[in-house]
Amino acid sequence: MRDAELTRQKILTVSADEIHKNGFTATSLSCILARCDISKGALYHHFTNKLELGYAVFEEVYAPAFIALWQPPVEAEDPIAGLCDFFSAMSKNMSCDEIVCGCPLNNLCQEMSAIDEGFRIRILAMQQQLNLLIATNLARVSHQLQPGLDFSQVAYFIVATFHGSSSLSKSSLNKELFDKVIKELCRYIRQLKR
Amino acid sequence: MRDAELTRQKILTVSADEIHKNGFTATSLSCILARCDISKGALYHHFTNKLELGYAVFEEVYAPAFIALWQPPVEAEDPIAGLCDFFSAMSKNMSCDEIVCGCPLNNLCQEMSAIDEGFRIRILAMQQQLNLLIATNLARVSHQLQPGLDFSQVAYFIVATFHGSSSLSKSSLNKELFDKVIKELCRYIRQLKR
Repeated sequence: MRDAELTRQKILTVSADEIHKNGFTATSLSCILARCDISKGALYHHFTNKLELGYAVFEEVYAPAFIALWQPPVEAEDPIAGLCDFFSAMSKNMSCDEIVCGCPLNNLCQEMSAIDEGFRIRILAMQQQLNLLIATNLARVSHQLQPGLDFSQVAYFIVATFHGSSSLSKSSLNKELFDKVIKELCRYIRQLKR
Repeated sequence: MRDAELTRQKILTVSADEIHKNGFTATSLSCILARCDISKGALYHHFTNKLELGYAVFEEVYAPAFIALWQPPVEAEDPIAGLCDFFSAMSKNMSCDEIVCGCPLNNLCQEMSAIDEGFRIRILAMQQQLNLLIATNLARVSHQLQPGLDFSQVAYFIVATFHGSSSLSKSSLNKELFDKVIKELCRYIRQLKR
């Protein structure tokens, strides 16, 4: 039982890495088998097909890592300062390459959402989970914020702008654009305060 | 001379359509020749190779159409109201499919910027042109706006958020997300006023 669980985790870790490198469609199961040093039967014992494996990578590796990245800034005592520091640090520390290569999750979303309904539903669920995380923590400090804000709307706006800043700099390979958008995003977030 | 120019325009129009439908890489020159009813020689008379044709489609069809789309709202007497109306109308009138299919320009940028330096330079130049258009028109009404705004930064922010709103709704095929982001974008834009 313990061994089976270890094998399952190994498959997920290796698959996440392969999908990150090649995209889902181009990822080869035989390559995963070779890297895990397991038989086809062992793989199919855990996942009935490649799509099921892809869903598991999304739900158990990518999505939790993505949510965990947002948790510390948003759950900080002051989520406004937390979010500004989070974005500023990214702007300061990330190279142009890192922004351009993009997060594995975003790449997978772009590749799969239009092709497969199972992925689309999981992507939407994850966006809603992130939205709830941000909106709840803004509501927690609502007494410090402007009256009349729609926290869910604000949360989607922040995430969309962050997405947009990386796709804008990605399509021009220019980090200056990313930095400018992040600066203005921080100004917007600070202005949420009364 | 006149005929040659007509042929060149026809090639550009047909190519823009083919690139929109298939992407640049998958676009076939022989298909363009067939639709234009011209010989290979006639095509090469105007464009030395497929890449040169792609650049011309970008510079003479896609980029001007994109800039022309932003001009009326931004050059309106009140660019703040102009931009809000522009985004609200998009949110109201565009179907989920239209948002998801995306603008041909954005698709081409995503496909080609990382592969070809010639495209990347042209994409950056176009982003800078759009940025200048928005920033100049905000500066024109600066007496009505908050003091201390960096107009170039504000302009990149608006464009990035708009990009992000469509990519967010694209990856979840959910128009509600798009509408929420656009609503908050309009609130942000209106808040630029004193």
